[in-house]
Amino acid sequence: MEKLKGIMPPITTPFVNGELATDKLEFNINKWNKTGLTGYVVMGSNGESVFLTRDEKLKLVEITKKFASPDKLIIAGTGSDSIKESISLSNESAERGADFVLLLTPSFYKSEMKHDAFIKYFTAVADSVKIPVIIYNVPKFTGVDIEAETVSKLSEHQNIAGIKNSSENVRQNNEFVYSTHKNFSVIVGTASMLYSGFTSGCVGGILALANIAPDQCVAIQNLIENGNLKEALKIQNRMIPVNKAVTAKYGVSGLKAAMDMLGYFGGEPRAPLSPLNEKSMEELKQILLLAGLL
Amino acid sequence: MEKLKGIMPPITTPFVNGELATDKLEFNINKWNKTGLTGYVVMGSNGESVFLTRDEKLKLVEITKKFASPDKLIIAGTGSDSIKESISLSNESAERGADFVLLLTPSFYKSEMKHDAFIKYFTAVADSVKIPVIIYNVPKFTGVDIEAETVSKLSEHQNIAGIKNSSENVRQNNEFVYSTHKNFSVIVGTASMLYSGFTSGCVGGILALANIAPDQCVAIQNLIENGNLKEALKIQNRMIPVNKAVTAKYGVSGLKAAMDMLGYFGGEPRAPLSPLNEKSMEELKQILLLAGLL
Amino acid sequence: MEKLKGIMPPITTPFVNGELATDKLEFNINKWNKTGLTGYVVMGSNGESVFLTRDEKLKLVEITKKFASPDKLIIAGTGSDSIKESISLSNESAERGADFVLLLTPSFYKSEMKHDAFIKYFTAVADSVKIPVIIYNVPKFTGVDIEAETVSKLSEHQNIAGIKNSSENVRQNNEFVYSTHKNFSVIVGTASMLYSGFTSGCVGGILALANIAPDQCVAIQNLIENGNLKEALKIQNRMIPVNKAVTAKYGVSGLKAAMDMLGYFGGEPRAPLSPLNEKSMEELKQILLLAGLL
Amino acid sequence: MEKLKGIMPPITTPFVNGELATDKLEFNINKWNKTGLTGYVVMGSNGESVFLTRDEKLKLVEITKKFASPDKLIIAGTGSDSIKESISLSNESAERGADFVLLLTPSFYKSEMKHDAFIKYFTAVADSVKIPVIIYNVPKFTGVDIEAETVSKLSEHQNIAGIKNSSENVRQNNEFVYSTHKNFSVIVGTASMLYSGFTSGCVGGILALANIAPDQCVAIQNLIENGNLKEALKIQNRMIPVNKAVTAKYGVSGLKAAMDMLGYFGGEPRAPLSPLNEKSMEELKQILLLAGLL
Repeated sequence: MEKLKGIMPPITTPFVNGELATDKLEFNINKWNKTGLTGYVVMGSNGESVFLTRDEKLKLVEITKKFASPDKLIIAGTGSDSIKESISLSNESAERGADFVLLLTPSFYKSEMKHDAFIKYFTAVADSVKIPVIIYNVPKFTGVDIEAETVSKLSEHQNIAGIKNSSENVRQNNEFVYSTHKNFSVIVGTASMLYSGFTSGCVGGILALANIAPDQCVAIQNLIENGNLKEALKIQNRMIPVNKAVTAKYGVSGLKAAMDMLGYFGGEPRAPLSPLNEKSMEELKQILLLAGLL
Repeated sequence: MEKLKGIMPPITTPFVNGELATDKLEFNINKWNKTGLTGYVVMGSNGESVFLTRDEKLKLVEITKKFASPDKLIIAGTGSDSIKESISLSNESAERGADFVLLLTPSFYKSEMKHDAFIKYFTAVADSVKIPVIIYNVPKFTGVDIEAETVSKLSEHQNIAGIKNSSENVRQNNEFVYSTHKNFSVIVGTASMLYSGFTSGCVGGILALANIAPDQCVAIQNLIENGNLKEALKIQNRMIPVNKAVTAKYGVSGLKAAMDMLGYFGGEPRAPLSPLNEKSMEELKQILLLAGLL
Repeated sequence: MEKLKGIMPPITTPFVNGELATDKLEFNINKWNKTGLTGYVVMGSNGESVFLTRDEKLKLVEITKKFASPDKLIIAGTGSDSIKESISLSNESAERGADFVLLLTPSFYKSEMKHDAFIKYFTAVADSVKIPVIIYNVPKFTGVDIEAETVSKLSEHQNIAGIKNSSENVRQNNEFVYSTHKNFSVIVGTASMLYSGFTSGCVGGILALANIAPDQCVAIQNLIENGNLKEALKIQNRMIPVNKAVTAKYGVSGLKAAMDMLGYFGGEPRAPLSPLNEKSMEELKQILLLAGLL
Repeated sequence: MEKLKGIMPPITTPFVNGELATDKLEFNINKWNKTGLTGYVVMGSNGESVFLTRDEKLKLVEITKKFASPDKLIIAGTGSDSIKESISLSNESAERGADFVLLLTPSFYKSEMKHDAFIKYFTAVADSVKIPVIIYNVPKFTGVDIEAETVSKLSEHQNIAGIKNSSENVRQNNEFVYSTHKNFSVIVGTASMLYSGFTSGCVGGILALANIAPDQCVAIQNLIENGNLKEALKIQNRMIPVNKAVTAKYGVSGLKAAMDMLGYFGGEPRAPLSPLNEKSMEELKQILLLAGLL
């Protein structure tokens, strides 16, 4: 198993009139194929995975695989609280071309979702899935957080390849890096952690921002790897307001609106999410202009 | 549409060796059939719904309907963030005998899950589901909370029958009661709110505790309706430690252990949950003894 | 020691040009003296205690005692994290006429502020203060919460008279009532808990709302004590929106604005708080009108 | 005004039998005087400031100034919610030798403590204090958080020298750096942020860890300034478990116990805090051994 690394967008799912629009997805992937991105995450948080039916999910994997250039990895978000269902969706995704699966920490019974439950869950799933598994820690959506001690133990499992960590806590992220197996990839899950992550031993980034600014994200990685921290930090700081806009501030709706402004197909999110209103649209435009993306 | 009321347990799902054990469910239902419970909630939080596959869920509705005495209502927990999937699972549950569906507030995109999104979600689902819909508010599991203003508006919908409110916030609960349509049922979602709920206008309780102490729960309701608050409060206060034990303290595992102690079939929860350890088992036993249940 | 009971406002502190205005305080107290309130809390959360210097605090006790009719109890908020300082301020308040002191749970080192620390703190203070002590639990301001087990133990102390509980959690409040010594007073700390508290064994209320609606608060208590729950609940429900406006929604600034509208002296809060803006002022007015207070 | 920078411990306050022990403080300061620390913070969170009387606070400033070598800066923690009191305690601290004052964000009325209130508070205090002011943001103790937009505006004030930021959120910290005035110092408030802070433009650290590992903290800074990130990260990662032990895990009690183990005077914390129990003491020892400090 090769070590997972590089910049990957959790790609948005294009809808037209509320239904999957595969031609729009093809359009976006064709653009991303020309960049230095190392792969695509389908059915991530920014893919509105929770609004998709099971059939739609599998179709998405299939289509993304079809349009992606052969050098791009396909990572499918297949986790749910149910071990049974997570295994079957993962394996069916593998059959449709996924190279890795990304599994949300189980989270419904929050007070019980601690060390023992996480070890049980990820071990059971990784034991039965045919492709390598990536842990997905995203406290802002799940309300639970995984500890370094747990990740350290899971990193010894042969079929657990890494963690996507969407927390902005730098202490926790550093703990993940230095306490895990050398073949285990710690991947930052938000562009706000990109610079600090790469200067501290992270090897990848699964970033909403990479949907709209793939070149800038890849540049930050490359500059750091070449020792040019000053320039990397400059781009990083320029990107923070954009990243904030397309995540915490305006969410998926904002990300999709920004895609529309920047030559990708964004479109509307699925209900119950709402598209941005005009005022937010205008603010977003100013943020993109200020950052030099528009 | 008759007004939904009375005491209903969110029934636990019995597993033997990790698989659905329908004979054990029959055994439990036969016991509950003899009580004053008005119905059964399948696939609720205490039913480990999140660990079940879609097929298992539908089978559960079918079996519960089969064994329930004809006077008991069947309420199926069918909600997820996906409007499409919530509608289809609800309608298929209706075909298998469900009288009502109970729908969790959508919760993944927490910061967007406010008034507008809730109105959109519940309206869309209630418009397309053949049986009446109950809103399910349970902040401790979802990390989101629904406001009285939103519930008030939704209570006007002809196919939204009520709310199960599992928050212990008495102010919020009172707001739900006095700001909603007269045909709308406000149902407390935890036994710790039973006394205060029924003295403030609530008409039902969907209570983990009703799995093991159905008579006591029904008695509290009846005593309050007959004006005997003093006696109702006495039972209520005696039950609080038990309720705490089978919810906040030991969760579903505790509830199932208590069922085993009290002549029902409890059994083990599904992974990644763990059964109670011996020390907790002993403490639980003391709590049941002290409350006079054992 | 007589059991502490009845309705008491945590009185606001009147400022003119940012300085204590004792004549305005006299004006307000003269009005409150004519009501069924059993006492006055000075230097509570609504008294902007945290913005006062030590000298101002002692002066406030002195003046309130001077203007209060002899049958009204004086309760002084004197707690801080420092045991030494809490004792000395409490005893100096006693010398100036305070009958009880109200002590915030210590809260700075949140993760350590649990059972042992609370037992140590309240025991040390109660041992050394000449007048009885009331525990003050207000999680929304302190970020810590005291458990029933702790309150139960503290209720055995001869010089700890009760608890003011400003949480809206009805389960916790009931636990306080049934697990504490019979001479110990459980007092609700917000009007939203008034009805549920009094129907569950609470004996008093220290309520922001009592600054502006003393008669309604007293009426709820009296109606419940006389078994007229229906009428009590009616007033309670009418008061909830007002209570929300002068607490969670607009805070002290809203309470002071409402006082000005209702014939008391409210005035401006001290910086860094700001007075209500015009829009909020108008909304507040509508809320008071709707509730029949204006 | 010279730009504030370098590593400074928020020094612990030594107590013997619960009373200030000035000889023990002298002993510690003599040891710290020989290190590369640039100054001492008295009455910080680790100084148990909240347990001290006003007189004790002023005495602490006086004594620290007396024993500190002339090249060390004296920073006094003087903030409270009261503007009046913060100003007077700050100016009296200045008279006793403080070079800077460190002011906690006001925090009691949490929901109102946002942009406007912070601007009002810090402007009012900075206008009236004779020495420069440092903002102190520590959400884990205060329950409030200050935004970059607010800090940016405050950084324009001539008498506001910097911010001590004890959050571990790297996005927020970077925003503070790039959005504030060039003379404004962003200082990390916890050793877990030291490496990431200094590689992103922070210029100082006020660190509990610097009480017991001043040389290591200073080394991290120097290595980063000389471009040796690899070595800096190595020390950083070695220190994270120690830092966690003397902050989040065991708090001030743990820090004091570690001081005793490492040749400083630690002693017991003041009540209501408790000294470490034997088991924790043993664990702490192992952590210090593993990190090579013992």
